[in-house]
This record gives sequence, structure tokens and C-alpha cells, in this order.
Amino acid sequence: MNAFNRVTDKDMAYFSSLMPGRVFGKDEILSDYAHDEMTEYGSFLPEAVLQALSAEEICAVLKYCNERRIPVTPRGAGTGLCGGCVAVHGGVVLSTEKMKKVLEVDTDNLTATLEPGVLLMEFPKALEGTGLFYPPDPGEKTATMGGNAMTNAGGMRAVRYGVTRDYILGMDVALADGTLIHLGGKTVKTSSGYSLIDLMIGSEGTLGFLTRLTVKLIPEPAANVSLLIPFAELDACIGAVPKLLKSGCEPTAIEFMEREVISCAEEYLGKQFPDTGADAYLLVRLDGASAQALEKPIELLTDTALSLGAKDVLLADTDERKESIWNARGAFLEAIKGSTDTMDECDVVVPRNAIAEFVAKMTEIARDAQIRIHSFGHAGDGNLHIYVCRDALPEDEWKQKLSGVMERLYAEARRLRGQVSGEHGIGHAKKQFLSDSLGQKQIELMRGIKAVFDPNGILNPGKVV
Amino acid sequence: MNAFNRVTDKDMAYFSSLMPGRVFGKDEILSDYAHDEMTEYGSFLPEAVLQALSAEEICAVLKYCNERRIPVTPRGAGTGLCGGCVAVHGGVVLSTEKMKKVLEVDTDNLTATLEPGVLLMEFPKALEGTGLFYPPDPGEKTATMGGNAMTNAGGMRAVRYGVTRDYILGMDVALADGTLIHLGGKTVKTSSGYSLIDLMIGSEGTLGFLTRLTVKLIPEPAANVSLLIPFAELDACIGAVPKLLKSGCEPTAIEFMEREVISCAEEYLGKQFPDTGADAYLLVRLDGASAQALEKPIELLTDTALSLGAKDVLLADTDERKESIWNARGAFLEAIKGSTDTMDECDVVVPRNAIAEFVAKMTEIARDAQIRIHSFGHAGDGNLHIYVCRDALPEDEWKQKLSGVMERLYAEARRLRGQVSGEHGIGHAKKQFLSDSLGQKQIELMRGIKAVFDPNGILNPGKVV
Repeated sequence: MNAFNRVTDKDMAYFSSLMPGRVFGKDEILSDYAHDEMTEYGSFLPEAVLQALSAEEICAVLKYCNERRIPVTPRGAGTGLCGGCVAVHGGVVLSTEKMKKVLEVDTDNLTATLEPGVLLMEFPKALEGTGLFYPPDPGEKTATMGGNAMTNAGGMRAVRYGVTRDYILGMDVALADGTLIHLGGKTVKTSSGYSLIDLMIGSEGTLGFLTRLTVKLIPEPAANVSLLIPFAELDACIGAVPKLLKSGCEPTAIEFMEREVISCAEEYLGKQFPDTGADAYLLVRLDGASAQALEKPIELLTDTALSLGAKDVLLADTDERKESIWNARGAFLEAIKGSTDTMDECDVVVPRNAIAEFVAKMTEIARDAQIRIHSFGHAGDGNLHIYVCRDALPEDEWKQKLSGVMERLYAEARRLRGQVSGEHGIGHAKKQFLSDSLGQKQIELMRGIKAVFDPNGILNPGKVV
Repeated sequence: MNAFNRVTDKDMAYFSSLMPGRVFGKDEILSDYAHDEMTEYGSFLPEAVLQALSAEEICAVLKYCNERRIPVTPRGAGTGLCGGCVAVHGGVVLSTEKMKKVLEVDTDNLTATLEPGVLLMEFPKALEGTGLFYPPDPGEKTATMGGNAMTNAGGMRAVRYGVTRDYILGMDVALADGTLIHLGGKTVKTSSGYSLIDLMIGSEGTLGFLTRLTVKLIPEPAANVSLLIPFAELDACIGAVPKLLKSGCEPTAIEFMEREVISCAEEYLGKQFPDTGADAYLLVRLDGASAQALEKPIELLTDTALSLGAKDVLLADTDERKESIWNARGAFLEAIKGSTDTMDECDVVVPRNAIAEFVAKMTEIARDAQIRIHSFGHAGDGNLHIYVCRDALPEDEWKQKLSGVMERLYAEARRLRGQVSGEHGIGHAKKQFLSDSLGQKQIELMRGIKAVFDPNGILNPGKVV
């Protein structure tokens, strides 16, 4: 364990000289900086919040804090779900919230270069008129692009287009000692030494501080369609996924949703879902070069779904209809959150043919513990979002039940050869589960890597490993 | 620098007890084991060659050699071009050439699990009848799948489908101390700690020994077509690439080829290329769900190419015609090799809009040095294969010219923000160029990582960093 120093008045004076007007001490810090979206994981107010504007400032802060042994916790929009951006060991929170420039859209190389604080929802504006788009599509649109990179965010379109990792070509990263390194660039393939960029992606700011990002863009598909496929039972619904993937229809996204979660969303949004007749649905999106090019994929999808017991295949080809379905899907997390006092989440990913088994087990676990558990998620890539709701449970009982339920959920994921997190990351909340899942040897290797990049352990301490 | 021990009779006796009949001493080793496909980089006969059959054997050999400080150089089919599988520090070569089983094709999860010695050309047989395929398509079909993974091989279809890295889901890896770890699995996304699997991919066996591989498969596109696009000049030919990529036609591959290289291939194959009227060509492959689904992409591609000065767009939609073009493309390396006494190669990758500039510079460098340089390659992803031919040059003059030419080629790639290797790797031949390209800090980080995985430095010493 590293011993850290507290932030002194002298430190604050240095930070203020470096970035005047963008340094906030304990009394000025908003309580939002003490947690991310999961307030369940506790409140940790940092000693200082610094809002950086440039790589130079970030390098200077790191160099200083490294010499002074002050923890530096990186933070974007604070939309994480595992406490990754929370200063559990105190020190400074170094925020990228003011680094919001899209620096370049290169329509020749199909890349964009941007500062880490650009929000996912803001980025498409910079691409307007270019005919290009950035495929990763995590549900949380107010997250930063930098946060997405450092957690390797996944999202709904991963089935066809892959995850954030697949779209990161270049990174500028400030190391713990304040050195700035340039990883990758605008090239689309490389076999040039160990892939430090892939190590950095998903490292949650524990190996370096992202100061600039170059992402890959692709031509925007001219046409898309969404299909809502009702099933009488959840089993048949999820069981259909592997065969749909194999049908050759090249789905962009395959989401699954249960009636109970849809009801939460209907209540939350005050709008009815376009179909009411089924207990479980698959929602599939197809992209193509033209409406004509979609004909064959739609046919393949429809035939396969109906042969597997789907009650119907409802085509949403107008913007209005697409919106009503996807808005409901987008509201699931907030809707479940709104339905309970507090909750805990689990983001396991399992092989795609094991989802049905996992969901069945989850239902059993909920019944055994007499607790409300909702799930929805990315059936097409095996990534489930599972929410355990506290509802009216008293503190003790909640803690006890929750811990038992989580143990069983993660054990089940391990048994099915799944992984602890599909896209939310580890933060400080999932460390034990990561260690249980990977075993001591891999955790030792990760700790060794951490020590190479950050010998004093100042970068986001208490996270991942 | 680590001090290594020589292989003794006692060591040989141990190896023989472990893997009887598959241990070869100095006098029994074929000279092929002393080099890879680039004999230019010298001859290094190992002290012993061991042919493994299982992960258990590999773990036992590593544990023993780690304790005894004997270098272990992994080797697949020996088709590399940078000396990656050559025992430059002596010791044992541990070969996967007998580990050739495809262990499972999982048509539900769209994965295959296989031993590392399966050849790229053998793997499709295991997928016959499943409707699935493995997209990475490096030119060297006699390479092993394990070698492809450990160099992050690229290939021609990277434009649409990505490189080998994008298709590796799981790896079993024997560490230097003989521990076997399981990285990844059949899940298609993860944010579960540092990506050790991505670190292992492209590490050329310097961090661990690959014993088993799980790869992602995708449904085989039902239709494909190849288009040969002649241009009057190389400039216009390569200059067209970024616009073709942006046209929305979603090319699978875009290769460029010059008349001189085609002539070499014609001579080598004893067959004429289907078109003779132009100095430079683009060869484009399109994949689609049906012949109908290809209509729009063909139209987009043709219109764009003609508007950019293409002399014609020749459609190859019969197997015979496709074969005659792609066979010529496949023969380029061997054809150039056959045309000269010896040669050296360079595999830089540059941003796609910089290829034309790089090729122009290359022509200038060849003229200045009065040496024959041929190039061809993956215009669609910026990866060039450049061959400097010795022809009749005397040893001294060749060495001197070659060194000057290589310096200038890599300097030019750096200036254009490219990378040292697109897909062949670093081995021992490209170490200096890697170091020049990445700078001291990144090399230090890589050496730190190497020390975490392999503290005694026995794994493929003298390679990468």
C-alpha cells in the first residue's frame, strides 16, 4: 500500500498558479464529485478538483503530484457505474470536463481527433455533412469520449461494429511522471511492438491520463431499419439469438427486453410501448447501403425469427416508430432507478449461447432471495445489465441479501465462462469479483504492469487491481 | 543483458524424457530452423529443437528452462519476415508444428478453438459446411494461426473485416515460469481489467507461449465480386483510394499493383495477367449477402473510380477470372524473390492519404541509390510491402546501399506519422527502427512489461525490445 500525502495550502497555491480559476478546494467542491451514477458505492469527497484545459496542464499536475505523492483521480462526466472516477484515497480529482474540442475531422483518412471531455452526444454534431459516423453507441450519451475509451465502453451496436477499442487509433497519454507519449495515430493496422494503446484502453486511468484521442470513422450507412420481435416466452426469445446471428442478416444490434422492464419505462416516460401483447421482445437494427440492400437481410431475419417461434416481426421504418421503440430502450436504466430507493448493478458478459441459461438462473436467484432483479441488455453480444433493487428493504437486510445475490450472479457467470464486466469496467466496486474471476496470477501480472507505468501508485489509486 | 546457459546433455535427457522422439540435438537439426523466410538476416542454428504436442509439455519445458536460464524461441511454420522465430541467443526452439488440431467449431457462439500449429490454409477445411468463415487473410497461407496471432498478422481483407487482433477472443498462454493462464474466452466484449490478451497479441512470443486459441467467426457472405481498375498513372491510382473508401461501397480489400510487379508475377507463374493496358491497378473485392445486395456497392465504386480518372472498371464475377487476378496478386512476394539474388523488406504502414506521397518518395529513393525497389500492398489500409532487391550488387555495396535506403524509407514513414510494421512484426531485424520510431520512453515501458512477464528473459530473447 502506498502512503499518500494530503493536499496542503502550498499545493493549492501551485495548482492555482498553473490553472487560475479552475482549482476548487474542499469547501467549494460540489457533492457530485464525491460519487458517480452509483451512489450506492459511497461518498468520497476529493481534497481538490482541478479542471484541466490542456495536455500541458495535465502533465504538469501529474509531475507535481507524482513527486509529492498525491493521488490523482481522472474524471470525465462522472457517468460511470463502478466508482472509477471517485477519489477513494483523497487527493485531487483532475477533470476533463472543460476539454471539449473536436480538433479535426479528417475525411481522407476517416478519422477524428478530439479532446477527452467531448460528450458522446456532442460528437455527432462535428460529423454532420461529412457522411461519416462513429459507430460505438453506449446507452449513456452524456458520458465523455475519454471515459468511453478508458473503460472500453461497448454499447448496442457492438454486434456489427465492435466496441470502443475497435475505433481507437491514436491516443496522447500523460504518464504518471508527467511525460506525454503518443500511441498509435491515423494508421489502421500495426504490428510494431507491444500494444500499449490496447493496454491503455479499458485501464480506467490507472496507467496514464488520456489527453487526446484519434478515433476511426466509417461511412454512414444510407439506410437502416428496426424490427421488434415479440415472443411468448423469454426462453424462446433469447434462445433465438445465436440463430439470428448465423442467419447472414448482419444485425447492427440485438437487444432483449422483458415486459416488466418495459412497464417501468412506460411509467417513467409516460408513453406506451408500440406493442403490448408479449412478455419478451428482441429489438433488432439492420444497416445497409440502401433500402434495397436491406431487403435480403430483412427476409433472412424474418424467416429465421418466425421459424423459431416469434409471434410476429414488426417493422419500424419510419423515424417516429423507430424513436418510440429506442426511446423506451434508452430509458430502461433511469426507469429502473426511479422505481426503487437504491440499487446495485452487475454487467457480466457470457458466451452468447449461455444468456438464456444465465437469465433463468438469475430468476431463480431473485426468487430464492425474494428480491426484485431486473435485466435487459445486449443479447447479441452476451452482455447483460442486471439491476438488483433495494425497494423498501432495511439497510442490514439489503446489504446481506445483496451480497449473497451478487456472489451467486458472479459465480454463475464464471461457471458459464463469462467475464465480470462487459462494458462498465471495474472501478473500486468490482475489484473483488475481478480477482475471483481471473485468479491470482493474472492479478499479479496486472499489478506488475501498474507498477511499471505508475511506480508511486498516484494514478487513480484503489481501482481495478 | 541476461546471461544464458548452454543446453547440456543432462538438459537433452530431460527434454527427451518429457517428449520422447520429438527432441533434436545440434547434429540432427535441419538448417531451415536457423532462419525464417528472410535468409538475409543471418543463420542461427539452435542448440535443440523440441516439437511440442500439448500445453502441458510447453509448460514443463518453460518451467525447466526458466530455472536453468535457457532461452526458448517459439516457432510455428517459420514463414516470418523479421527473424521473430530464430534463436539468436541459442537455446531451444520450441516448435508448435505438430499441434495442428482444430479442437472445436462452436456454431452457436460463432467461435473456433484450435491449437497454435494449425496452418492458415488448413483452417477453412474445418469450417466447411458451417456457413461460417474466418476473415483475416494474410498472403502467406502456410503460416500458422499461432504465428498470425503472435504477430497480429493483417492481410488483405483488413479494410472491411479488421486484422487478426480483431478475431482473437481467447488464448491459453504458458508464462515463462510454466504457469498456464486463460485469457478471454468466447465472450465478444469485456472491460475486465487490463487487456492482457491484447498485450499478448503481437508480442511475438516474448511475453508468453501461446498454447491454444479461440477465434471469432462470422457468417460467410453469400456473394462476392472482384473489380480490377486500371489507371494510366500510379499517382491517380493510389490517390483514388480515400475516395473509394468514403463512397459507401464498403470494400473488403483494396490492393494496388504496378506493371513492373505484375510482369514479375507473369514470368513467375507463366501466365498472363487479364489486362495489359495500364501501368497501375487497384484490385477491389466486395462482399455482400446476395448478388443483388452487391449492385449498389458496385455502382458506387464504379462511378467513383471513373470520376477519378480510372480507364475502366473490369468486373470479375466468375471463379476463373477472380482466380487469375488473385493468383497473380498472391504470387508477388515469391515472384520478386525469384527475380533477385537476395532482398530486404520493409512493411511500413502510413495514414491512407499519405500512401501516394510515400510511394513517390520511394521512387525517388530508389533512383538516388540506383537500386531496384518494388512495392505492392494494401492500399486500403495504408500498409505497403517494399522489397529492395540486391540483384548483382557486390556484398559491400549492397550492405551500404541497403542501409542508406532503409534509413530513408523509415524516416519518411515517421515523417508521415506512420508505423514501422503494419503486419510482419519486429523480430530481431527491425528493433532499431522500432526504437527510432517510438522513442525511448515507450521502449522503456515495453521493457518494463517484458520484465514483469519474463523476469529471466528466457522467452524469445533478442526480439522486439
